[in-house]
Amino acid sequence: MAEYSTVGKSIPRVDGLEKATGKAVFTGDMHLPGMLTGKIKRCAYPFAKILSINTEKARKLTGVKAVITAKNVTQFSYGYVVDDELPLANTYARYAGEEVAAVAAIDEDTAEEAIDLIEVEYEKLPYVLDAEEAMKPGTPVVHLNRENAKQNIAHHVEFIRGQGEAAFKQADLILEQRFSTQVAHQAYLETQACIAQWDISGKLTVWGATQNPFYIRNVLAGALGIPEHQVRIIVPSIGGAFGGKGYLHPHFPISALLAKVSGKPVKIEYTREEEFISGRPRISEIIDLRLGFKKDGTIIAKSAALIANCGAYAGVCPYIMAASASRADSLYRLFNIKVTANLVYTNTTPRGPFRGFGNPQMFFAMESLIDQAASELGIDPIELRLKNAIHKGETTVHGWILKSCGFDKTLRLAREKSNWSKSRQKSDKYHGFGVACQVHNGGNKAIAAAQGGYDGSSAIINVDQYGKVKVISGEGELGQGILTVFTQIASEALGVPPNDITVMPQVDTDVSPFSFGAVADRGTVLGGNAVLMAAKDARKQLLEYAAAKLGLPIDDLDIKHGKFYDKDSSKEVATVREIAHDTVLNKLGGAYITGRGEYRVPDFVVVPDKSGYGNFCICYTFSTTVAEVSVDSDTGQVNVLNIWHAVNIGRAINPAACEGQVEGGIIQGIGYALSEDYIWNQGILENPNFTDYKVPLSAGVPKIHCLWIEEPNPDSPFGAKCIAEHSLSPVAPAIANAIYNAIGVRLKDLPLSPEKVLKALAEKKRGNKG
Amino acid sequence: MAEYSTVGKSIPRVDGLEKATGKAVFTGDMHLPGMLTGKIKRCAYPFAKILSINTEKARKLTGVKAVITAKNVTQFSYGYVVDDELPLANTYARYAGEEVAAVAAIDEDTAEEAIDLIEVEYEKLPYVLDAEEAMKPGTPVVHLNRENAKQNIAHHVEFIRGQGEAAFKQADLILEQRFSTQVAHQAYLETQACIAQWDISGKLTVWGATQNPFYIRNVLAGALGIPEHQVRIIVPSIGGAFGGKGYLHPHFPISALLAKVSGKPVKIEYTREEEFISGRPRISEIIDLRLGFKKDGTIIAKSAALIANCGAYAGVCPYIMAASASRADSLYRLFNIKVTANLVYTNTTPRGPFRGFGNPQMFFAMESLIDQAASELGIDPIELRLKNAIHKGETTVHGWILKSCGFDKTLRLAREKSNWSKSRQKSDKYHGFGVACQVHNGGNKAIAAAQGGYDGSSAIINVDQYGKVKVISGEGELGQGILTVFTQIASEALGVPPNDITVMPQVDTDVSPFSFGAVADRGTVLGGNAVLMAAKDARKQLLEYAAAKLGLPIDDLDIKHGKFYDKDSSKEVATVREIAHDTVLNKLGGAYITGRGEYRVPDFVVVPDKSGYGNFCICYTFSTTVAEVSVDSDTGQVNVLNIWHAVNIGRAINPAACEGQVEGGIIQGIGYALSEDYIWNQGILENPNFTDYKVPLSAGVPKIHCLWIEEPNPDSPFGAKCIAEHSLSPVAPAIANAIYNAIGVRLKDLPLSPEKVLKALAEKKRGNKG
Repeated sequence: MAEYSTVGKSIPRVDGLEKATGKAVFTGDMHLPGMLTGKIKRCAYPFAKILSINTEKARKLTGVKAVITAKNVTQFSYGYVVDDELPLANTYARYAGEEVAAVAAIDEDTAEEAIDLIEVEYEKLPYVLDAEEAMKPGTPVVHLNRENAKQNIAHHVEFIRGQGEAAFKQADLILEQRFSTQVAHQAYLETQACIAQWDISGKLTVWGATQNPFYIRNVLAGALGIPEHQVRIIVPSIGGAFGGKGYLHPHFPISALLAKVSGKPVKIEYTREEEFISGRPRISEIIDLRLGFKKDGTIIAKSAALIANCGAYAGVCPYIMAASASRADSLYRLFNIKVTANLVYTNTTPRGPFRGFGNPQMFFAMESLIDQAASELGIDPIELRLKNAIHKGETTVHGWILKSCGFDKTLRLAREKSNWSKSRQKSDKYHGFGVACQVHNGGNKAIAAAQGGYDGSSAIINVDQYGKVKVISGEGELGQGILTVFTQIASEALGVPPNDITVMPQVDTDVSPFSFGAVADRGTVLGGNAVLMAAKDARKQLLEYAAAKLGLPIDDLDIKHGKFYDKDSSKEVATVREIAHDTVLNKLGGAYITGRGEYRVPDFVVVPDKSGYGNFCICYTFSTTVAEVSVDSDTGQVNVLNIWHAVNIGRAINPAACEGQVEGGIIQGIGYALSEDYIWNQGILENPNFTDYKVPLSAGVPKIHCLWIEEPNPDSPFGAKCIAEHSLSPVAPAIANAIYNAIGVRLKDLPLSPEKVLKALAEKKRGNKG
Repeated sequence: MAEYSTVGKSIPRVDGLEKATGKAVFTGDMHLPGMLTGKIKRCAYPFAKILSINTEKARKLTGVKAVITAKNVTQFSYGYVVDDELPLANTYARYAGEEVAAVAAIDEDTAEEAIDLIEVEYEKLPYVLDAEEAMKPGTPVVHLNRENAKQNIAHHVEFIRGQGEAAFKQADLILEQRFSTQVAHQAYLETQACIAQWDISGKLTVWGATQNPFYIRNVLAGALGIPEHQVRIIVPSIGGAFGGKGYLHPHFPISALLAKVSGKPVKIEYTREEEFISGRPRISEIIDLRLGFKKDGTIIAKSAALIANCGAYAGVCPYIMAASASRADSLYRLFNIKVTANLVYTNTTPRGPFRGFGNPQMFFAMESLIDQAASELGIDPIELRLKNAIHKGETTVHGWILKSCGFDKTLRLAREKSNWSKSRQKSDKYHGFGVACQVHNGGNKAIAAAQGGYDGSSAIINVDQYGKVKVISGEGELGQGILTVFTQIASEALGVPPNDITVMPQVDTDVSPFSFGAVADRGTVLGGNAVLMAAKDARKQLLEYAAAKLGLPIDDLDIKHGKFYDKDSSKEVATVREIAHDTVLNKLGGAYITGRGEYRVPDFVVVPDKSGYGNFCICYTFSTTVAEVSVDSDTGQVNVLNIWHAVNIGRAINPAACEGQVEGGIIQGIGYALSEDYIWNQGILENPNFTDYKVPLSAGVPKIHCLWIEEPNPDSPFGAKCIAEHSLSPVAPAIANAIYNAIGVRLKDLPLSPEKVLKALAEKKRGNKG
C-alpha cells in the first residue's frame, strides 16, 4: 500500500468543533428580517373528501399574514415516477396528517391559534391501510382520480433472468417463506425545516436541510410552476438525514406559497410529531420469497413477489421498490430469477428513502431464508455463502461489473474475528450467533437518468494568495463527514496540510457546481473523484508557476506539506504561500489559482435497461455481519451483545469516520431489527414521538467490531468504496439468524419484538415450527 | 462606432427593483441567532487623558454581555501610511467622539443604558483645532506618544518639477491667493453598520458595508492581531458610500472584540450623529497657490503650499493629500512646479476618502485662480484653458501617459451647449456663468502598491445547464451601478441577453476573487476588463462545445441573443441553453462552463516614484463644467440654475447610469460649494445631523445637462472611462467663478455661504476688491 500523509489517518472532523459546541447554524437557528412562522393544518382522518375550508376566522386573527388552501394558490402536481402529489390537498386528503391548509403569522403561537381556527368540512371515506388488502377488488381506491391506480397499484416491476422459475426444477431443496417488514423513521435529530423568500424579480430562495438541493430545486420549481433557475436553495447545517431529507417534503412548496402570499420570508419547522406523521419513513414490504438449492448448497433459483406499501403517495418509492426487487441478487452467483413487485397505495403516511434504500427489506428475507437452507442442508451458513459468493471480475445476474469485490474475504474475516465456529458450538441456550451479508452501490446512474443520464460530480479548488485552499463541491455535509473526506483527498493530492484547506460547507445552488447530492452513497466515490481531479489540476498549476518563478525544471519539483521541494536534494525551495501570493496578485489579476475536477462515470457505467439490467455504478461495497445475541425467555427481550462487521472498504480514507458510519448504520439496523415500528390505530398514528417510537438507547448498543479489508477499487479516489449505507441492511437478518441459533425459532416479521419472540417460543413449545 | 446590442443602451438597473421596493437587505436589516447590540462610549472632550474607566455598574446591568476598554482587550495599532490608530483609545482620547469603551447587550436600550453607566475619569488637555495653528511651536501635540509628530505633522510631501519656482521669472502675470476648503461628510443614507461573529475555530466573519472588503479584511486582521485568512468579510447591500466606506471604521474591530468577549454575534449600527462625529469626512485644506502666466495666457509656473487637516488620525489622508498636491497639474501643459504639503493632526474628527479624493480641494483653488488670470489678462476663461489644455498622446508633468484625452473637446462642447459667449454677455446683474475643469484617474497603482503593486481585477463567468450566466467579481455594488455595467459587458461579449445574466451582488472574501474594491474609480475600467475577458473565454468554450456537438466548423458559428447561428446562412442552429445543458451534464460532470478573466494593468502603468512621478492608471477622465447662477443680493443666497457637464467618457456603457453618476457628483459638489460644513464649538461638533448639516435639497438642484464625448479609450472595456468621481470636483470653482461673473467678487473659502456672499458684497461696496 502506498504511503500517504493524510489519507488513511483519522484526522478530527473539520466540522466537529462547531457541531459539538452548538455553534453550527441549522435552519431552525436562522432568522430573516420580517420573517413569519408558517404552520400546516393537517387532515385528521385517514381518507376524506374535502367539502369546504373556512379560513375566515383564521384570517381575522391579529398577526396572521397569510392563509392558504388549494383553492387560493396556484400549485402543480409533482413526483418522481408518478406525479401524484400536490403541496396542499385539493379534493381528497389521503392520510391522517396530509396538508390541507397553511398559515403564516408573526409568531408560532399566533400561527398555531390560526391553524385551530381553520374549519374544514370533510366527508369521511372508507380507507385502506394494508397493502395486500388494498390490491383486492372492492377495497377503497386511494387515488380515485387516477385511472391507472384502480387497484391502488402505483408502480409495477417484473423481470425474469436466466431460466426464471423453470430453474426450480433442478433444485434439491426449495424453501418458501413470507417475510414482512415495517415502517421505520430515519429519526434524525433535526426535524425538517426551511425558510422561503421571494425577491422582487420573482426569484425564490429557500434555506433548508436537504440532501440533494439541486434535485429539490427542480421538483420545487415544478410544484410551483416556475423555471428551475428561478429557484435557489441554500443548505445550512444539517442535523442528520439518512435519506429522509432526500425528497421534496411539502413544507418546501408550502413555505414558498405562504411567502408569496404574505410577501415576507416564511419559516416552517416540523414538530417531532409532524416528522413521524408526515415525514417519509421507510417502505414496508411483504415479500414472498422462494429459493431453490442444490444439495451442495448452490443456490439455483429465486422467485419473489413483493408488495411494497408506499402510503398515500409514490414519491421516490418506485425506485426504492425496484432496488428491493433486484439488488440483493448480485451478492451471489444466482442466475435464474423471477420477480414481480407491486408498489401499493394505502391511506397511510407516504414513504421515502432511508439508508439502504430498498436493501434492508430484501436482505432480511434473502439472508434469513439462506440461513434456513444452511440448517436444512446441514451446511455452515458461512460456508454456504462462500460457496455461492460472487467474485471480482465477474458480472452479476443484473449486469453489475465487479472491478473489485472481496465478498469472500469479508465472510472469512468475520468468521475469524467472531471466532464463529467455536463460538457457535459453545453457545449456551438462549445465546446465539447469526450471519448475514449485503452488497451496496456507490452512485446510481439509474436514478440519475432523470437528469439525462448524469451521474458525475464536479469540484473547484481555489488556492488564494495566502496559499489557503478552498474546495467547492455540490455534494453536501449531512453529518456523514464528507467535508473531512474531501479535505483529506485534497490535502493528499495537493501536498498541502489539512489545516490549510477549507471545504465550503454550504451547498448553494446559485454558487456550487451542479450535483446530484448526498444520496445513493455517492459522496466519497463520485464527489471524491471530482475533488481529486481538481486537486491534481491545481497542483499541476502550482508546479508550473513555481517552476517559472524559481527558474527550475517542473519535473524537479515536488509539493509536500505546503512546501515546494527539489526532488533530488530534498531541499525546500519555496512555500506554497509564497508562490500563491505572487501568482494571484501578479499573474492572475487577483483570481485564485483554480483547479477544476469534472468527473463523469466511465463508459462501463450505464443507465440500466427497462428490466433493470446494467452496470449502474463504479463500485460496490460487500460486507458480512455476524451478530451475537442473548434472548430472555421470560420477557422475550433480545439483547445484541456483539456485532462483527467485515467490509471490503477499498480504502478507509478516514478510519474513524468510517467507523462512525458503520456503527451508526448498525445501530439504526438494531432499531429496525428489534424495536422501531409505526403503530396505527384506525389509520391514526399512535406513536409519533421518541417515547413511544423506540429507537435504540445507548444501553442497547453492543460492542461493534469494524473489520476493514482494504483492496483499492480502481475507479474511486485512493480506491475508497462507499461506506454510508451498507452496514444497516444485514443487521436484522443477522440478528434473526442469531435468534434462531439461540432459541430455534425463525422470526420473519420485523421488528423482532419481545411479544413476537415470546409468541414464537410459545408456539415452538406447542410443537409448531417457525 | 461599432453596433452593439446591449452596450450603450440604458437598460434598467439590475438591482433597481429590489432597492426601490425596499426588498434589498442591508446590514441593519440582518439578524443572526443570539445576536447582541453593540454600542460605543465616546469621549466628550476634544483632548483628554484617560485616567480610569469604571465599568462596574455597566457590567452589573441585566442584559449586558460584554464591556470592553483598551485595558481588557488585545488590540493593535493600524493605519495606512502611519499606524496611529487603535480600535479603543488607550491613554489619550484625541477628539470629541473618540471610542473609549464599548458594550454588547441583549438590546439597544440596555446597551445605551450601559454606555451611560460607564464612568470615565479624564484629565482635560488643551487642544488644537486649526491645522495652521497646530503646526506652530508651543501648541498642543495631538500625538504626544509619537516622536515624529511633535509639530503635529502626520505626513509631508514635497516635489519640484521642471524649473520649479525659478520659472516664475518668465511670468508676465503672477497671481497668489489663499484658498480654504471645509470638512464635508459623504452623507450616504445608510449609516455605518456591521455584524461580527467568531466561529469555534477562531475565524471571524464580518457582515458590513464596505467598498473594499479585501483591504478591510487585511487591516482588520492587523488591528486584531490575527492572520488575514482568518477573517471573512461578507458585504450586504450598501446604501451609498462615496469613499466613506473605504476605510476600517472602528466599529469593525470593536464589534469583533465585543463578539469575542461575549461569544455571540454583535451588531453595531451608527446613529446619524455618530456618523458625523466619528465618520471619516473630507479633509479640509488651506492652499496657498501661486500661478505664473505669460501675456498670451500660457501657464508658466505653479507653486503651492498645502496644509491639510486630517483630524486626530491620519488614516488614508496621506494618499489623499498627495492627490491634492499633484493631480490637478496634469490638466494643463504646466511643467514648472513646486509643491509642499503637510498633513496636520488636530483634535477633530479624523478625515478620510470622499468622491474626488483630494481633487475637489485643489481644483477649487486652481480653477478659481485661472479664472482670475483670464479676467486680468482679458482672455475668455475657456479660451485660456484651451490654450493650455493637455492633449491625447502627451505625457503630463507627473508622467501620466494620455492614450486618450479629449479635454479640449469637453471645453468646446460645454461652451457650445451652454451658449457660453452669448449667455455671459447677456448676463443680468446678479446672474453669472462660470467654468471649471478637472481630470480624474481610473484605478490607482499608487494606492494598490500596498498590495505588492497589484491593481488588477479578475472575474469568473459560469454558464449553467440552463444557459444562465453568473458573473462573479470581487468588485462590489455600492449604489453606483456596477452590477448593471458588468451585466451589459458580459451580455455583449457573450452574445446572451442581459436577462439571462446575474452578477453575484454580494462580495464575500471567502468566495469572490481578490480585488482592491470599489475605490479609485476602478470598477468599470479594471473590473469591467476582467468581466470582458471572462466573457470572451466563456464564449470561446461555448463555441467549441457547440461546434463539436453540431459537427460544424467553429469559425462558421456565432452567438447572438442566446442562440448559435450559422454565420453564412444566418440560420439558428442551437440555443445556448441546449448546448450548455448537454455540456454541463454530459461533458463536465456537473461543473459549469467557466470563463476566467484575469486582468492586470499593462506595463505602461507603474507604481509612481517617491516624488509621485509615473503613469499610475490606464485612463484618465477629462471634463468641463459650466455653471449658471443667480445671486440674491439681499440674502446672499446663491442659486445654481444650470450645469453643463461635458466629459470625454470614452464609452457610455449605460448612458442613464452615467447620468446618475454625473448628476449625483454634481449635486454633492453643489452641497460642497454652497452649504455643507462641519461647525465646531470649542472642539464639539455642533451640527451632527441632517437638519443643521445642510446637504442640497431637491429644490436646490439645477437642471443638469450631461454632455458625452465618446472616444473609446484603447485599454478599457468597450473604451469606457471611469465616471464615478470626476463630476464633483469642478462644481465649486465653476460656481465660484459664476459668482464672480455675477457680482464681481471672488470667494476663496468654501462653502460659499450666504453670509460670506453678503460679507463680500459689503466689502466690495466699501471698495475692497476680493
